[in-house]
Amino acid sequence: MSVLVGVDLGGTKMHVGVAQMSDATLALLAERIVPTPSAGGTELRDALVAAIAELVPATETVAAIGLGGAGVPQANGGFSAAPNLGDVEFDLAASLSEHFGCPVTIDNDANVAALGELVSEGNDLTSFGYVAIGTGIGMGLVLDSELVRGASNAAGEIGYLPFGTDPLDAANHRRGALEEAVAGDVLAERDSGATTVRDVFDRAAAGEPEAIEALDTQAKWVAHALAAVIAVVDPGAFVLGGGIGSREELWASIQNWLARLGYPNVPLSISTLGSAGAVLGAIELARRSLPTSQSTSQLTGASS
Amino acid sequence: MSVLVGVDLGGTKMHVGVAQMSDATLALLAERIVPTPSAGGTELRDALVAAIAELVPATETVAAIGLGGAGVPQANGGFSAAPNLGDVEFDLAASLSEHFGCPVTIDNDANVAALGELVSEGNDLTSFGYVAIGTGIGMGLVLDSELVRGASNAAGEIGYLPFGTDPLDAANHRRGALEEAVAGDVLAERDSGATTVRDVFDRAAAGEPEAIEALDTQAKWVAHALAAVIAVVDPGAFVLGGGIGSREELWASIQNWLARLGYPNVPLSISTLGSAGAVLGAIELARRSLPTSQSTSQLTGASS
Repeated sequence: MSVLVGVDLGGTKMHVGVAQMSDATLALLAERIVPTPSAGGTELRDALVAAIAELVPATETVAAIGLGGAGVPQANGGFSAAPNLGDVEFDLAASLSEHFGCPVTIDNDANVAALGELVSEGNDLTSFGYVAIGTGIGMGLVLDSELVRGASNAAGEIGYLPFGTDPLDAANHRRGALEEAVAGDVLAERDSGATTVRDVFDRAAAGEPEAIEALDTQAKWVAHALAAVIAVVDPGAFVLGGGIGSREELWASIQNWLARLGYPNVPLSISTLGSAGAVLGAIELARRSLPTSQSTSQLTGASS
Repeated sequence: MSVLVGVDLGGTKMHVGVAQMSDATLALLAERIVPTPSAGGTELRDALVAAIAELVPATETVAAIGLGGAGVPQANGGFSAAPNLGDVEFDLAASLSEHFGCPVTIDNDANVAALGELVSEGNDLTSFGYVAIGTGIGMGLVLDSELVRGASNAAGEIGYLPFGTDPLDAANHRRGALEEAVAGDVLAERDSGATTVRDVFDRAAAGEPEAIEALDTQAKWVAHALAAVIAVVDPGAFVLGGGIGSREELWASIQNWLARLGYPNVPLSISTLGSAGAVLGAIELARRSLPTSQSTSQLTGASS
């Protein structure tokens, strides 16, 4: 038997999961969360090899590996524009592929999370933008059940939308003008009584006006971003995720700002998958890297 | 023999062209420009039937018709959100299809112009945004040689991007906040010495500071729009068209603003096809509506 491996590669930890290739629902056989080596490169590769080897039974072979990380995957197998993870210049995909003797596909963490939403049980959307808001902001765009990656794999880098902060100020170009308005550290700084994002939500729940105002400003710029995505590509629906995006407290305020922006009825849901969604998406990424004849189905439930 | 018919349906005139279905280059056999009936509906249908009948030789049959117009094509064959043309509630596609006994496909004028760019001789781009700027602003988005239409055929409606004018002011929601900053009438009003868009360009060429400033402001907001499109969907390149977009005088200023927005090297070209591009695109739209086995090739030059 063969298994598919999915990895959610975060800045501080990696979540690795394994599913049976013959299982259309991609139920996890085993999973493991381990620290991400700060050095990247071969050290990262070795940590991944060890984690995967521990999870895959000796009787199984690895058919394909999918990996989601912060940044834009490059043709050489590394990432660029990954301010939260640091660039991986070394060809991680080729190195893992050589070790396991199987295809290894790397994609942006937001793209992978979007794939996870697409194939998760109960999802009936085939076109949507998955918008992750946490340390930064990014989007995985799915149209007709396919990821839209863009000409250089940089589709969905909505942190670079030209509003929220001054887009003409070069100081805002590293993270992007919008990300400078909605990143987690910015949200925390907007409330003088808060140190962390969690503080802001706690203080808002307790009725602190400054915290409520900070969340409303967050919702305003997120709504501007969703409005821009609608204008450019008409995704039909949005799923919000990430440490900030998945907070229910923001939902009504985002809808309110969307209505004020001229979009009163945007289908907007909150992801409930968390890190498991990214792992599921990475496994689906692995499955999609194989020729159709090798995989049992393209989507959960497409065959029995 | 069979022919393909393409129509560029403008607010004041319609440009109709005919090409041999067996001709991979889609060279026009005949074309005709006639006034667009102001009443729309059956009057529009009758005018199209008459124009097509005059162009198609008695020995030929019409294999398919493609039609591009301002607005968002609806499932019922009409358009919505077409502030420059007026809504066509009547099912134009079904009515023409019944008359000619062939498939009739309607698409947004910017989408159709983008298809025209894609299949035009000398084009080597397979992913790009075709941005039309004239009476309004709109985009046809092509990724991997396919039009991206969005979940409800409203992809590319970039006039609704939330900047340029106040996006929270409901008065700007009809045309869209960006369109209120870059539409032709707005450009003309921005220069107190000009009555028309042409005046602004003429006065700028003569060195009038107010006209030069008006064009620079136009370029600034167009650059913001291109930056937003890059952030959302990474099209890889842009082709500018339309009465304003195809003016070479704007090109350097748009590039300058793009660099200030953090995008110093955006592949940006100016369409040279004009109305003929829309007709060519409408013919390609017709060709793509047929089963592959019936059409000789998907793209110009794909077969000899």
